[in-house]
Amino acid sequence: MKEYPVQRAAALKPLPDPDMLVFGKTFTDHMFLMDYTAGQGWHDGRIVPYAPLALEPSAMVFHYAQEVFEGLKAYRSPDGGVQLFRPMENVRRINSSCERMCIPQLPEEDTLAAIEQLVRVEERWVPAKPGTSLYIRPFVIATTPSLGVHAAHDYIFCIITCPVGAYYKEGINPVRIYVENQDVRAVRGGTGYTKCGGNYAASIRAGERAEEQGYAQVLWLDGVHRRYIEEVGSMNVLFKIGGTVITPALTGSVLPGITRKSCIELLKSWGVPVEERLITAEELFDAAEAGRLEEAFGSGTAAVVSPIGEMGWGERHVTVNGGQIGALTRKLYDTLTGIQWGTVSDPFGWTLKL
Amino acid sequence: MKEYPVQRAAALKPLPDPDMLVFGKTFTDHMFLMDYTAGQGWHDGRIVPYAPLALEPSAMVFHYAQEVFEGLKAYRSPDGGVQLFRPMENVRRINSSCERMCIPQLPEEDTLAAIEQLVRVEERWVPAKPGTSLYIRPFVIATTPSLGVHAAHDYIFCIITCPVGAYYKEGINPVRIYVENQDVRAVRGGTGYTKCGGNYAASIRAGERAEEQGYAQVLWLDGVHRRYIEEVGSMNVLFKIGGTVITPALTGSVLPGITRKSCIELLKSWGVPVEERLITAEELFDAAEAGRLEEAFGSGTAAVVSPIGEMGWGERHVTVNGGQIGALTRKLYDTLTGIQWGTVSDPFGWTLKL
Ligand SMILES: Cc1ncc(COP(=O)(O)O)c(C=O)c1O
Ligand SMILES: Cc1ncc(COP(=O)(O)O)c(C=O)c1O
Repeated sequence: MKEYPVQRAAALKPLPDPDMLVFGKTFTDHMFLMDYTAGQGWHDGRIVPYAPLALEPSAMVFHYAQEVFEGLKAYRSPDGGVQLFRPMENVRRINSSCERMCIPQLPEEDTLAAIEQLVRVEERWVPAKPGTSLYIRPFVIATTPSLGVHAAHDYIFCIITCPVGAYYKEGINPVRIYVENQDVRAVRGGTGYTKCGGNYAASIRAGERAEEQGYAQVLWLDGVHRRYIEEVGSMNVLFKIGGTVITPALTGSVLPGITRKSCIELLKSWGVPVEERLITAEELFDAAEAGRLEEAFGSGTAAVVSPIGEMGWGERHVTVNGGQIGALTRKLYDTLTGIQWGTVSDPFGWTLKL
Repeated sequence: MKEYPVQRAAALKPLPDPDMLVFGKTFTDHMFLMDYTAGQGWHDGRIVPYAPLALEPSAMVFHYAQEVFEGLKAYRSPDGGVQLFRPMENVRRINSSCERMCIPQLPEEDTLAAIEQLVRVEERWVPAKPGTSLYIRPFVIATTPSLGVHAAHDYIFCIITCPVGAYYKEGINPVRIYVENQDVRAVRGGTGYTKCGGNYAASIRAGERAEEQGYAQVLWLDGVHRRYIEEVGSMNVLFKIGGTVITPALTGSVLPGITRKSCIELLKSWGVPVEERLITAEELFDAAEAGRLEEAFGSGTAAVVSPIGEMGWGERHVTVNGGQIGALTRKLYDTLTGIQWGTVSDPFGWTLKL
């Protein structure tokens, strides 16, 4: 496995209080950097002290958002070891995002090696308290100082890491969501299946409006028909209707979530029927009103699963499972977190011990 | 008018050869910077030496592309003066982009004052050779070092400038374009009407593919029906069909171009009928095949107008006006460039002399 040169930070930061960790605000002592230069390819992978990036004001990332990212976590297992969850899925997905954004492909094995080595260097930052983890954020940005709208010739691949607290500090409380009828996050033919910055920029306004109205997230509809459900906030979404788990098919505007994929694989292994298909907001709300919507939840690396307790769509309001987390949602949460933190066995070989 | 403090560069760069100017690669000696801090608003507007921006790797612009930009030019008039073309339109449009991106509104008068003052400071960079100009690039980026998907609390507003050569060095040669059937640039409910980075990132792949196949630009179709014409590359598009100029209506997914608006106003003042409406690729190609498509051109700050000589759409190929620039396109080009460079009178009050 590739071993990168490490330049150690002169002074290490004090570790934060594990009870006070806020997502994405405290970063560790080091980061991984690798450069891309046209003609030369990716080169000079290295671990260096965490520090600002100095870029020309004309760097393309500032103007044309040629940028992609990933998100995964390192978990502290009971034996004191550290493990990753399906990290190669993230590496493959960043390359799929790169392809859409005309960013050169990353070398997959070496990219995984970079993630592993950085986490080993930052090992003391992987918190041990239940539910905590080290969040890993790989990203690529276009740095060519040029204002032409073209693929850049120069990129930086960077990995930063930050310790994160337990997502659920006071038990798992189902959230209120509402169907967004105005703003669109992604459309067929666009970039919805990638983790490119532009998708998130487009989603901010609806998210802020939802929060102002007391909702935790928005339920996105497709951009073509404005009828089919796509995702919930920055999560995939799954519904248990009449005993079957239904989740929007990956039609190009939905992010292929790794938690979603893992939920589907677990559910199938348990004999629960799963359908990946188109589902309209109408079908969903009709099912809820007919008492057939048994459970609903978002899935993603941050929350693992996030049960939905209440949904609004214009004048229609429904509650799900009396506002309580459903039994299957709970079982998925327990199983996935058990595998991720190494407290239950991993029959699928999803974890990678460092 | 607001006057910002100026920190002069210690050494000034040599001016480039006006015959060798490439768009967007050579930047001037100074730039304008202004900071936004939540609670404090926009503050500390200043002109400083052109230099790299140092941002935290976790700065939101690198991850969620919360960023908007503008593009306008300063023109050297025959009397040796320098003038801008409808700059307040750009200021208003950046604020419309900011609104969609949840970026705080810029103070409009002070933003215009910043553009004016920077151009005055960089006056020696405004080239005098026919067709050359100083391109002005205002942009805003989110700098808060935080990975949560939310509107940032901190932003930088920056203006950089670069001298640009004549767009048409060897006369105006009409270009070949083709209808993009796969990738989508923008969709109703999305961000198409803004100059946010994500729109351009989404458009790069189709542009690169078009170039590989010998086309200069892509003709974008709407994301919902994939039938209606929206724009051509990074320009608006206008067609003269049976004596009437038709241009796609501003339905939310099309950028409201200032050149487009100026063309419409000029055409109307000349008594040429103009329709802003939906137009399908089918209608366009049918008109071309029936010999009714008299002229076709893109409009934008870079090229002013860019005549289209040939169009492809799957198996269908048509030429426009025998591959020559049309008379009305030529008249628009001459009039607009005349007003911009101050060689013809400006009855509309579009120019702002510095
Ligand atoms: C838009 C969007 N959908 C879904 C997900 C869930 O993906 P994953 O399960 O791989 O974290 C994410 C990221 O976490 C996301 O940003
Ligand atoms: C997508 C797009 N459409 C159209 C235009 C034309 O706008 P304007 O005439 O204001 O330059 C531009 C920018 O130049 C653009 O980026």
